[in-house]
Amino acid sequence: MSETVSPLAPKKQPRMPAIEGVRIATAQAGIKYKGRTDLLAMVFDEGTTVAGVFTRSKCPSAPVDFCRQNLAGGRARALIVNSGNANAFTGKRGRESTALTAKAAAKAAGCGEGEVFLASTGVIGEPLDTTKFAHLLDGMVAGAGADGWAEAGRAIMTTDTYPKYATARVLLGETEVTINGIAKGAGMIAPDMATMLSFIATDAPIDAPVLQDLLSKGTGKTFNAVTVDSDTSTSDTLILFATGAAARRGAPRITEAKDTRLSAFRRALNRILKNLALQVVRDGEGARKQVEVTVTGAKSARSAKRVALSIANSPLVKTAVAGEDANWGRIVMAVGKAGEPADRDLLGIWFGDIRVAHEGERDPAYSEAATSAYMKRDEIAIRVDLGLGRGKATVWTCDLTKEYVAINGDYRS
Amino acid sequence: MSETVSPLAPKKQPRMPAIEGVRIATAQAGIKYKGRTDLLAMVFDEGTTVAGVFTRSKCPSAPVDFCRQNLAGGRARALIVNSGNANAFTGKRGRESTALTAKAAAKAAGCGEGEVFLASTGVIGEPLDTTKFAHLLDGMVAGAGADGWAEAGRAIMTTDTYPKYATARVLLGETEVTINGIAKGAGMIAPDMATMLSFIATDAPIDAPVLQDLLSKGTGKTFNAVTVDSDTSTSDTLILFATGAAARRGAPRITEAKDTRLSAFRRALNRILKNLALQVVRDGEGARKQVEVTVTGAKSARSAKRVALSIANSPLVKTAVAGEDANWGRIVMAVGKAGEPADRDLLGIWFGDIRVAHEGERDPAYSEAATSAYMKRDEIAIRVDLGLGRGKATVWTCDLTKEYVAINGDYRS
Repeated sequence: MSETVSPLAPKKQPRMPAIEGVRIATAQAGIKYKGRTDLLAMVFDEGTTVAGVFTRSKCPSAPVDFCRQNLAGGRARALIVNSGNANAFTGKRGRESTALTAKAAAKAAGCGEGEVFLASTGVIGEPLDTTKFAHLLDGMVAGAGADGWAEAGRAIMTTDTYPKYATARVLLGETEVTINGIAKGAGMIAPDMATMLSFIATDAPIDAPVLQDLLSKGTGKTFNAVTVDSDTSTSDTLILFATGAAARRGAPRITEAKDTRLSAFRRALNRILKNLALQVVRDGEGARKQVEVTVTGAKSARSAKRVALSIANSPLVKTAVAGEDANWGRIVMAVGKAGEPADRDLLGIWFGDIRVAHEGERDPAYSEAATSAYMKRDEIAIRVDLGLGRGKATVWTCDLTKEYVAINGDYRS
Repeated sequence: MSETVSPLAPKKQPRMPAIEGVRIATAQAGIKYKGRTDLLAMVFDEGTTVAGVFTRSKCPSAPVDFCRQNLAGGRARALIVNSGNANAFTGKRGRESTALTAKAAAKAAGCGEGEVFLASTGVIGEPLDTTKFAHLLDGMVAGAGADGWAEAGRAIMTTDTYPKYATARVLLGETEVTINGIAKGAGMIAPDMATMLSFIATDAPIDAPVLQDLLSKGTGKTFNAVTVDSDTSTSDTLILFATGAAARRGAPRITEAKDTRLSAFRRALNRILKNLALQVVRDGEGARKQVEVTVTGAKSARSAKRVALSIANSPLVKTAVAGEDANWGRIVMAVGKAGEPADRDLLGIWFGDIRVAHEGERDPAYSEAATSAYMKRDEIAIRVDLGLGRGKATVWTCDLTKEYVAINGDYRS
């Protein structure tokens, strides 16, 4: 946790309601941090289904391997998360740690080890000493309560400057259900700190394959559309739990992804995913500005997203935004290097509503003064039209400041 | 030109000899800079052959388009380079500028416009006003002399903190020939400043297709293996001219790439390319350390190079080096995100000769004190062994410092 809260932090945090079927406990295990909670247990009622998406890294952490394996079963009874140590690049000892933690959690929750999910975030390469916390799990599960969401968000923080929450109520059939989400991450990726974790729970009764479909499709335009520094963590983890408790109040069980009663739920879930993803960007290390990059007129949506990410990941674009400089030459550069179809002489570029370039040349009508004024905002929208087709994508990032370099140049030593 | 010279600048500049068949002139055209030269003309004797490699950007500058077209002819009589304006993203007016410059240069040198080569470096998006310099070309060509290499290196600088030279003498058959090269670039890519330009000339008699083969193959492990910030310019240009004047002193004309008499020349050329490429890295914006990244044990050389570039382009690896932090966890992350075959449990990582990680875990024998001492050097070598095959590659970069952000955040405004 940093002492200075990001200037882009939400002005107000939502009050997080309870989710039927979810109980929460946190503890101070002293894994690395002192004087703060660093251990989270979530306990789920029998019948809870689960879906997850994980880092694409070829060198994933031990807990990511562990969760991927258990996901096949589609059932969850417990989630254990620690901060301060990522249990990544810890070899055989890493697998021993996940096995020991899962065993202790299964015993505490009275479930099988295949129903336990694990996440770890913190330093890479240090063995995770389970003797620091495995003995705490019995007591945590026994004492877990429904109202721990606010504390859950704090227990999983590392370099975050604020905890990240989102909540929504939505109708499933004619029954109101609730979705709660928490996330951590400061820098899409700060791999020492093992990155982005997010856990979402709902009382809606949704089968695991449907839940996975919702989550996989939902991440494309949310968590997979944000970037702080283009660096992908070993530990990115997003898990969605559905306890099904709302069935007792009449909510229909959803067994197929194409069920039309799911529409409002899907929209609410996607809003929560986007909300949490943007909170991660807005807590990007050293961030002073949120940057939305929209590419239109590409050959395909896939091509549009690649061009958008090329712009959003360009150090030169990001430093220009930090310097409040409407440097569209660097945007041309980033379009050009993306390797996707583009024609210089068709390009249009906008900052907000101000068109700065048109058909491959500086827009003769463009006002430097108006653009400079726009660049002083803390939310900057960049739009590029490639003029080739109908492909479209939006991604989000933050600016690249001296503070990013300071945070990441000074961190481990 | 910056007022502070990079701490990684060469301690000593080579004395650049004349190249038979090449005459040089520079001028102060006042295109953007005042009180310094910003225009270079090189004039080549009849019979000069030419080869070139250019940016892979889909949005190349007008001079890049122009050169690519003329390269097909394989003959060169004049090279005109200006600094201060990149003539990139200037649309139809960009093409008019290259046409006018080529016409003036062809008239001055008494050659066809197809034998003229052009390069521009500086701000993107500003029309290049040829009336500032086209009238100077007659006088420059008339007054050009053999001894202008040192001044040529200075005339093409933009944010460079030092001019970049390399020279070699080598036997072709039994005749000594000379190769001279100059380069500019501070940041592989500073697209406002339109990036990396390099011009090389030799008196060796080598046919254009052979010259192109030498240059294309030579760049893979030199100019295409350096990166400052992963941003690819609209204007990268590397041109090699061979006047053939050494034939008069008995040098054999080389008409086939497989000619064994070419071996020493090829090695000397590759050394010059590498020397100039490293000078660009060592003048990287804000650079305080040169970083050599070697990947061994990959499935293929191509795979090794991708992993090496993933490490060399990672902001988190580069900021760690700036902070003198042997942060191998970030190297694991960069290997993992490269998308190439890798097995966490086989990875070995070294800083210099110090093995910090072995078989997917921290090396138990690794000394933090020795590694910290190593990280204080100004040349850092990182080696990663993937343990999968025999593919190998080396790339070079520099660290990412607060000065990089300052230079690029403050530049245009």
